[in-house]
Amino acid sequence: MALLPAALERVIRELSKLPGVGEKTATRLAYHLLRTHRQDVEALAQALLGLRNEIKFCSVCLGLTDQDPCSLCNDDRRDAGVLCIVEQPPDIAAIERSGQFRGRYHVLHGRLSPLDGIGPDELRIRELLRRIEGGNVTEVVIATNPTVEGEATALYLAKLIKPLGPRVTRIAHGLPVGADVEYADSMTLGRALDGRREL
Amino acid sequence: MALLPAALERVIRELSKLPGVGEKTATRLAYHLLRTHRQDVEALAQALLGLRNEIKFCSVCLGLTDQDPCSLCNDDRRDAGVLCIVEQPPDIAAIERSGQFRGRYHVLHGRLSPLDGIGPDELRIRELLRRIEGGNVTEVVIATNPTVEGEATALYLAKLIKPLGPRVTRIAHGLPVGADVEYADSMTLGRALDGRREL
Repeated sequence: MALLPAALERVIRELSKLPGVGEKTATRLAYHLLRTHRQDVEALAQALLGLRNEIKFCSVCLGLTDQDPCSLCNDDRRDAGVLCIVEQPPDIAAIERSGQFRGRYHVLHGRLSPLDGIGPDELRIRELLRRIEGGNVTEVVIATNPTVEGEATALYLAKLIKPLGPRVTRIAHGLPVGADVEYADSMTLGRALDGRREL
Repeated sequence: MALLPAALERVIRELSKLPGVGEKTATRLAYHLLRTHRQDVEALAQALLGLRNEIKFCSVCLGLTDQDPCSLCNDDRRDAGVLCIVEQPPDIAAIERSGQFRGRYHVLHGRLSPLDGIGPDELRIRELLRRIEGGNVTEVVIATNPTVEGEATALYLAKLIKPLGPRVTRIAHGLPVGADVEYADSMTLGRALDGRREL
């Protein structure tokens, strides 16, 4: 005999599939949903259904959007001559929050990772090169993650893009704001020294 | 201009309402849902919609069920003469997992907590007394939590139930299985000594 009602078991099973949510957390969440207002649960369910129906990839930058092209690609006040390359769509929102970039974006949808079987053909590099060849792009800012794979991807892209004309730059590595020199890891500290600037 | 597509913002907002889920976790979950199979997201949404439509309270024990009376109250092999009183529906599943109880349950839906404005009228005590008066209940096991409020509720119920006839018992307090005497808190250790049994 099942201990819990079937509908409750089902919610727990589905919630457990989320990353970082185990059976205990899923059970806690399910009981919470049983206690909250009915319309809150329905709002969540409807939002989830809308997620996959309303969101698609922008045909220009390959970021997430509900209109095509996305509002960033459609914004004439943004400099179409500067392209920022990121690994994943959430990276765009992170860079936008910094308020320091007024160009356009291009999402690779991954990084080179031969061990996982991800080579250049698995990334959206072809679309990137077509954009650079087609427009008058003067600078490409590579904002892949500062990891081994992200660095390898950046170097690979730089080699491909430079012959096409634009300047290729890489976002700076160094100490994050608010960090402690004493506790910084040596790799980061090395990069911070390497990238020192005149004051 | 919004940074994220509206449908994504909506999912993040709704997920953030869950206990223990902040905006960062909600964002991570939302992006995860965008990457998983469409039918997984739909299964989760449908499970959530079913939750509130299919689950109700059992009219006898007030636990959660999808049929009324619930499978526990309907099970003739269970001893109707022994009632176990718990605070919340999930407590039933926890006790069932122990495999040590073969009687029936009654859910109070809370505990006495005057500071939060929860008195006897806010709990399902009237239904409990009616069950005891109506049937031939020989023992009532009080399994409220071993907290100040849970203890107060247990004492209050014992005083109400004893005049009606049944034995009133309380689940034992002591060291949890696998615990260390060295690190046990003094309250628990005191209760464990107090409740010592002949070997």
